[in-house]
Amino acid sequence: MDASPILKNVSRHIDLDTAEEQFFVSLLREKEFEKKAFVLREQEIGRDSIFVTRGCLRAYTIDHEGMEHVLQFAPPGWWIADMYSLISGKPGSLNIDAVEDATVLLLSREKQESLFARVPKFERFFRIITENSLVASRQRVLDNLSLSARERFADFCHQFPSLADCVPQKMIASYLGITPEFFSKIKSEYFRQKGPKSGP
Amino acid sequence: MDASPILKNVSRHIDLDTAEEQFFVSLLREKEFEKKAFVLREQEIGRDSIFVTRGCLRAYTIDHEGMEHVLQFAPPGWWIADMYSLISGKPGSLNIDAVEDATVLLLSREKQESLFARVPKFERFFRIITENSLVASRQRVLDNLSLSARERFADFCHQFPSLADCVPQKMIASYLGITPEFFSKIKSEYFRQKGPKSGP
Repeated sequence: MDASPILKNVSRHIDLDTAEEQFFVSLLREKEFEKKAFVLREQEIGRDSIFVTRGCLRAYTIDHEGMEHVLQFAPPGWWIADMYSLISGKPGSLNIDAVEDATVLLLSREKQESLFARVPKFERFFRIITENSLVASRQRVLDNLSLSARERFADFCHQFPSLADCVPQKMIASYLGITPEFFSKIKSEYFRQKGPKSGP
Repeated sequence: MDASPILKNVSRHIDLDTAEEQFFVSLLREKEFEKKAFVLREQEIGRDSIFVTRGCLRAYTIDHEGMEHVLQFAPPGWWIADMYSLISGKPGSLNIDAVEDATVLLLSREKQESLFARVPKFERFFRIITENSLVASRQRVLDNLSLSARERFADFCHQFPSLADCVPQKMIASYLGITPEFFSKIKSEYFRQKGPKSGP
């Protein structure tokens, strides 16, 4: 297991000595998922915080008309989870699957509690990354209320520069809350305005 | 200052001894706001986590067309903040004002850091309440993408049973992302279906 990406992520907010690093890494399970494979299905209990080291995951729900609604994309270096299910221990409503072949590190809630007991500063780490996720989520609530689909797509490209090209268009449309047809229109307008991506 | 509501809130997630309680309470500032008074204006730096003990606050943005978009209501027992501004130390985009005459307890980010240094289990408390806020915020993203305005209003009444009557209709409409006229229509439909609130 290559733990360096997750240790780098942790070191952004807390300092660990070698013994603490080793204990943390000993609690992680590495797992690979092929494109389209499920990491978690709705109605299952999500027991893990998931850190992506390769590929890309997405979390989404399916409404009663069968429409998918994308809550989150997680490229390398991002955490993803069904937080409701994780903290309540109840079945969740999220599906999490692999947009591309992916490698992840899993930290179960149970192991996370052992981590807090032995290395309490991880409470700080998870407090800070949860605060950051909350800021992003609230900004998305406000953007959905106040910005046009064009503005939301521009923000998406800014936030996820690597995803606009590799994630299927219909998934990005679903994340933005618009139809694939309308998405296709605003995407071509956006790139026409920005000009060609590479010069001659 | 009556600190019992905030101590009760804290005791839901961590246990404090008397000295820890006293230290925590010594860091708080109590403040009163008249209806419509601002707790924080956009472009100011939000330095406080705000716990409401009386009345109700709301956080909202104003878009470039002058429309208000309500991010959050905070009745007694709720925390509210411009989390972006709080963690970045930069000017925020949120206005926070009093929907009704309100009393709040303020914990500045600086005092919060002293608290973490002396009583580290507060990291756990704020980690847990931030996780709960994240679950609520993500649910709202999904609800806005997948539920009708009628369904979102029913959820609102369930989540904030005390607010549907006392908060001005146009603020609830703004929270739900619909016009006041359409809100008025679905509200009367909702209460007609539920029947009269009190019997003869």
